[in-house]
Amino acid sequence: MKISVERGTLLKAVSQAQSVVERRNTIPILANVLIEAEGNTAQFRATDLDIEVVDKAAAQVERAGATTVSANTLHEIVRKLPDGALVTLTDDGASGRLTVEAGRSNFSLATLPKEDFPVMASSEYACNFTANAAQLRRLFDKSKFAISTEETRYYLNGVYMHVSDAEGGKVLRCVATDGHRLARIDSALPEGASEMPGVIVPRKTVGELRKLLDDDEMDIAVSVSETKVRFATPDITLTSKVIDGTFPDYTRVIPSGNTRRLEVDAAEFAQAVDRVATVSSERSRAVKLALDEDRLILSVNAPDSGAAEEELAVAYGDERLEIGFNAKYLLEIASQVDRENAVFMFNSAGDPTLMREGNDTTAVYVVMPMRV
Amino acid sequence: MKISVERGTLLKAVSQAQSVVERRNTIPILANVLIEAEGNTAQFRATDLDIEVVDKAAAQVERAGATTVSANTLHEIVRKLPDGALVTLTDDGASGRLTVEAGRSNFSLATLPKEDFPVMASSEYACNFTANAAQLRRLFDKSKFAISTEETRYYLNGVYMHVSDAEGGKVLRCVATDGHRLARIDSALPEGASEMPGVIVPRKTVGELRKLLDDDEMDIAVSVSETKVRFATPDITLTSKVIDGTFPDYTRVIPSGNTRRLEVDAAEFAQAVDRVATVSSERSRAVKLALDEDRLILSVNAPDSGAAEEELAVAYGDERLEIGFNAKYLLEIASQVDRENAVFMFNSAGDPTLMREGNDTTAVYVVMPMRV
Repeated sequence: MKISVERGTLLKAVSQAQSVVERRNTIPILANVLIEAEGNTAQFRATDLDIEVVDKAAAQVERAGATTVSANTLHEIVRKLPDGALVTLTDDGASGRLTVEAGRSNFSLATLPKEDFPVMASSEYACNFTANAAQLRRLFDKSKFAISTEETRYYLNGVYMHVSDAEGGKVLRCVATDGHRLARIDSALPEGASEMPGVIVPRKTVGELRKLLDDDEMDIAVSVSETKVRFATPDITLTSKVIDGTFPDYTRVIPSGNTRRLEVDAAEFAQAVDRVATVSSERSRAVKLALDEDRLILSVNAPDSGAAEEELAVAYGDERLEIGFNAKYLLEIASQVDRENAVFMFNSAGDPTLMREGNDTTAVYVVMPMRV
Repeated sequence: MKISVERGTLLKAVSQAQSVVERRNTIPILANVLIEAEGNTAQFRATDLDIEVVDKAAAQVERAGATTVSANTLHEIVRKLPDGALVTLTDDGASGRLTVEAGRSNFSLATLPKEDFPVMASSEYACNFTANAAQLRRLFDKSKFAISTEETRYYLNGVYMHVSDAEGGKVLRCVATDGHRLARIDSALPEGASEMPGVIVPRKTVGELRKLLDDDEMDIAVSVSETKVRFATPDITLTSKVIDGTFPDYTRVIPSGNTRRLEVDAAEFAQAVDRVATVSSERSRAVKLALDEDRLILSVNAPDSGAAEEELAVAYGDERLEIGFNAKYLLEIASQVDRENAVFMFNSAGDPTLMREGNDTTAVYVVMPMRV
C-alpha cells in the first residue's frame, strides 16, 4: 500500500477512529486502525467490538492495499504535523512496518496483519430512513443527560429510540432515564421509519454519533435492526450493537394529572439553583422549592456549613407547596430548556414532577422529588 | 461586622485567598478566610501555615469587625453572583453565622472564631527592595520548570533566589534544578538588594507569586529574611516561609568548556522533538541528536512501537556528534526560548550540554544527556 493524503483530511479521519478505540486494550489489534486503500479513497476503520466506525478520505492511491497501525500513535503524529502537509503512508508488506512521511519527518510504525482485524459482520437492517442532523442532534442531546450509569440496570445505559404515538400521530422518540429523572423527546417521523424496531442506543454510541451531527443541513442515513443501529454520512459510517434488553414501560412514570403550574425564566431559575446549592458540599444536595402566589423561594439547609435562600418572581396561582429536589437533577433539567420559560407541573411533595419547555409537548422531563 | 463590597472586587480578593487554602485540611480553621473590616477597607487573609496571603479590598464598612468563613464556599458563592452586584457581609457575633446578601440571594455561613485564625508572625526583614513585575516574572517563569518534585531532596523543591556575580557586576539570580536539568536566570540587581540573603522560594509560593505579576508596570515590594520572603503590591501581600536547607553549589554543574556550537530555530526544533517523541509511549523517551555539517537529525527508536526521524537545517560547523536527551527535558528547555534561535553548546555525548537563547548570557540552561 502507498497513499498520500492531505494532513487535514487525514487528521479528521484518524481522530474519529482513535476516539472509538478504547485506551486500555487486552487485545492488541483493537488499539489499531485498519487502513484500506483502493481507487482514490482510503478507509480508516476502528472498533471496540461493540462500535465500529469507518471513515472515508480522499487519497492519492499509488499502490492499493491494507494494513493496521496504532490509532493513537498515528493520530498523535498527524496532529503534530504542520497544517497543509501532504502525508504519505507506505506499507511494503515484508518489513511489518508502515512508513509515514511528511516533509522532512519520517516515522516507521509497527503494524499488525490486516487479517486479524475484527471487521463487524454486516447485518440485514429491517428499517432504513433518512433523518436530518439537526433533528437527531436534538433527540439525543436533550435526552442523554438522563442515561443511567448503573451497570446493574444495563437496559438503562442508553437512549431508547423508538416509534411512538403522540397527539399529532406517530413520532420518532428518544427516552432516557436513570430512575430519578427521565427525558422524553419527540420529533417528526421520517419517511420509512414507521416500522423501526425500538432500540437502546448505548451511551458511548450516543457520544460518537454526536460528532456526525455538527452540520445542520447534513442528511444522516439511519439503519436499524433488532441488534444493531447504523448512522452514516457520505464520509463516515458508525455501526453499533444496541443494548440487548427491554426498556421499561416509561409511560407509567410520566404524570398526567399534575395540575399545579409554575412558569419561571429558565436561565434565572438555573442560576438560582446553582447558587443556593453552593452552601452544601454533599453529593445529593437537596434544594427546597417553596411556592406561593407568584413567588418561589429556593433554599438549602446544610447544618454543618450554612444555609442559603433566594427568591424568584414567577407565575404560580395554585395553593402553597413545598417540595425538594436533588440540585444536580434540577440544574441538568433546567439547562435543557432552549426557550425562555420552563413550565413545571406539580402534584404533591411526594409525586413526580413534570417539566416542559414553555408549552412545547415534544420535550418532556420528569424528576422525582426528595424529602427535605 | 457589616460591610458591602462590589462583587468583582470581592471575587478578586477571595480568589487569591482560596487558592492558598489547601483542599484537604485536618485543621478546620485553615479552610477559612479571615475577614477583617475597618475604615474603608476589608482584608481577606488565608494561610496554609507556610504561605499567607492578605488581600485588601475597598469596602463600605458599616460596622467594623472580623470573622472567619470557608474560603472555598465564599468564593463559589461570589463567583456565581451576577456581575456588578453589591454584596453585603454581616456577622452579628452571637449566632456564629456570616450572612451574605446580594439582590434576592441570601446565604448564612458557619463561622469560626477569628481568635483561632493563625496569623503569621511578622518578622524582621534583613533586606527590602523594589522590583518590577516583568523582571520578577521572567526570573521565576523561566526557572520554575526545573524545580525538583522529589521530596527527599527538599532543598531542590524551589527556586533559589540570590545575589551573584556575573560578567557585568552583581545580578539578582534565580536558579532551579532537579539534577537532570538546570535553569539559571539573571536580571539587573534592584537598588537595595545587594545584601539579600539567598533563599529557596518553595514551588507553591512561586505559583501564588505569579498571580501578582501580570501587570508589567507594577512595582513589587520584596522583603527577604533568612526564614521568610514577602512580595507585596498595594493590594496584595504574599508572605512565605522559605525552604530551610542549603541549595547545592550549582556553579560546578554549568559547563564552561563546551565548544561545539549548534544554532537552531527554537520553535522548529521544539516541534520536531515533539513529533519524533510520539512513537514511544515510555515516560523517559530518549531522543537522539545526530549532528553533522549544518545538519541535525533527530531520531527516536522504540523497538515495540516504531521509529521516527526528522532532519533540520541548522548552523553547526564542528565534527560529527551523536547525543541523546530525555524528550520532555529537551522540549521544556526549548520552550523557554523567547528569541528566534536556541544555541546549544556540546562537549561530548556523556557531558552536560549548555543551552542559551541566542547570545544572551542572562538565561542559561543545562541538560544532562542520556545514553541512546
